[in-house]
Amino acid sequence: MRQANAQLQSDRRAEILEAARVCFARSGFHQTSMQEICAEAGMSPGNLYRYFRSKEAIIAGIAERDRAEVGQQFAHAELAPSFFAAIEPMLQHHFVERSQVDVALCAELVTESRRNPEIARIYQSFDADVRARLIGMLKKAAERGEIAADVDFEAAVSLLMTIAEGVWSQRASNPQFDPRPLVPLTMGVIRHVLRAST
Amino acid sequence: MRQANAQLQSDRRAEILEAARVCFARSGFHQTSMQEICAEAGMSPGNLYRYFRSKEAIIAGIAERDRAEVGQQFAHAELAPSFFAAIEPMLQHHFVERSQVDVALCAELVTESRRNPEIARIYQSFDADVRARLIGMLKKAAERGEIAADVDFEAAVSLLMTIAEGVWSQRASNPQFDPRPLVPLTMGVIRHVLRAST
Repeated sequence: MRQANAQLQSDRRAEILEAARVCFARSGFHQTSMQEICAEAGMSPGNLYRYFRSKEAIIAGIAERDRAEVGQQFAHAELAPSFFAAIEPMLQHHFVERSQVDVALCAELVTESRRNPEIARIYQSFDADVRARLIGMLKKAAERGEIAADVDFEAAVSLLMTIAEGVWSQRASNPQFDPRPLVPLTMGVIRHVLRAST
Repeated sequence: MRQANAQLQSDRRAEILEAARVCFARSGFHQTSMQEICAEAGMSPGNLYRYFRSKEAIIAGIAERDRAEVGQQFAHAELAPSFFAAIEPMLQHHFVERSQVDVALCAELVTESRRNPEIARIYQSFDADVRARLIGMLKKAAERGEIAADVDFEAAVSLLMTIAEGVWSQRASNPQFDPRPLVPLTMGVIRHVLRAST
């Protein structure tokens, strides 16, 4: 019984986070009220406040969930036979397959980070995590001799993250923007920057 | 006398646009009121409405001015002895020297484009202009034999614009982000993608 309750609570949290994502993407963090999130989640304010006490707590919840998801993607990627075999499906996923709600949320995070230090902190810590994981993958690839060992890994990761942010920004502002050609193009650029041996 | 009046009107317009840029970057398009812009410009609402009838008209005015400025930059760049000599100072300017107000405005444009079709139209037409100018520069560079003639110019320009958008997005969300290493890195990437001959 206690386990069923925990499961129910976890489901309700997930529903609220999903409803909040839709609201934030539609109206922006700033203009979204807790009432709007309640309506989208089909839940009373009293009930919603039992799970999250503020919009910031909801945003932190979304970030935590996204982080867990990205953590799983990296764990999976690290099993791939080579860095390039690992990174290509990640580009495909993050450039092309991410939903319009996802890319809209990214754009909201960028503007809101400028006005809300707590959101800036969440966003920058997530970003630092991803960079560290990517640098770790590059170090292993260099040990395996797939890429040059004397490349500036930080710079290479910075370029990759810059291209990713640029893709999201363009997708967010223009739903007609086609990110697909950027996957092979970016793969070529990374191979060049890392002086890939194959 | 009539000329002095025209000059005064043009100066007042420029002052309003500058005040509006500061307000938009600080509070966002959506949350900025015409009153706030009046206060920043030190001007009465009645006077401001003589120049601009709405926030959208102010945004269109900012875009028009930015467009004229970028047009001059391209005209200047097209006099440079080579594509690479032209593009490096442009990257330096757009990646590094643009102010925090400028990059914040870009981020605002991205989110507001999603909600306001008129802003989306202004933004996308500006973007299309810049792409066309860059493709024109690449065609001339190919004619001069500086770069390979069979490169996909559209894809190369798309990559360059994606990197630029990524730089602005990161600068907007994190004032500590250092864009300087991305200038030489991007130059190397462009040379590679364009198969530069020198």
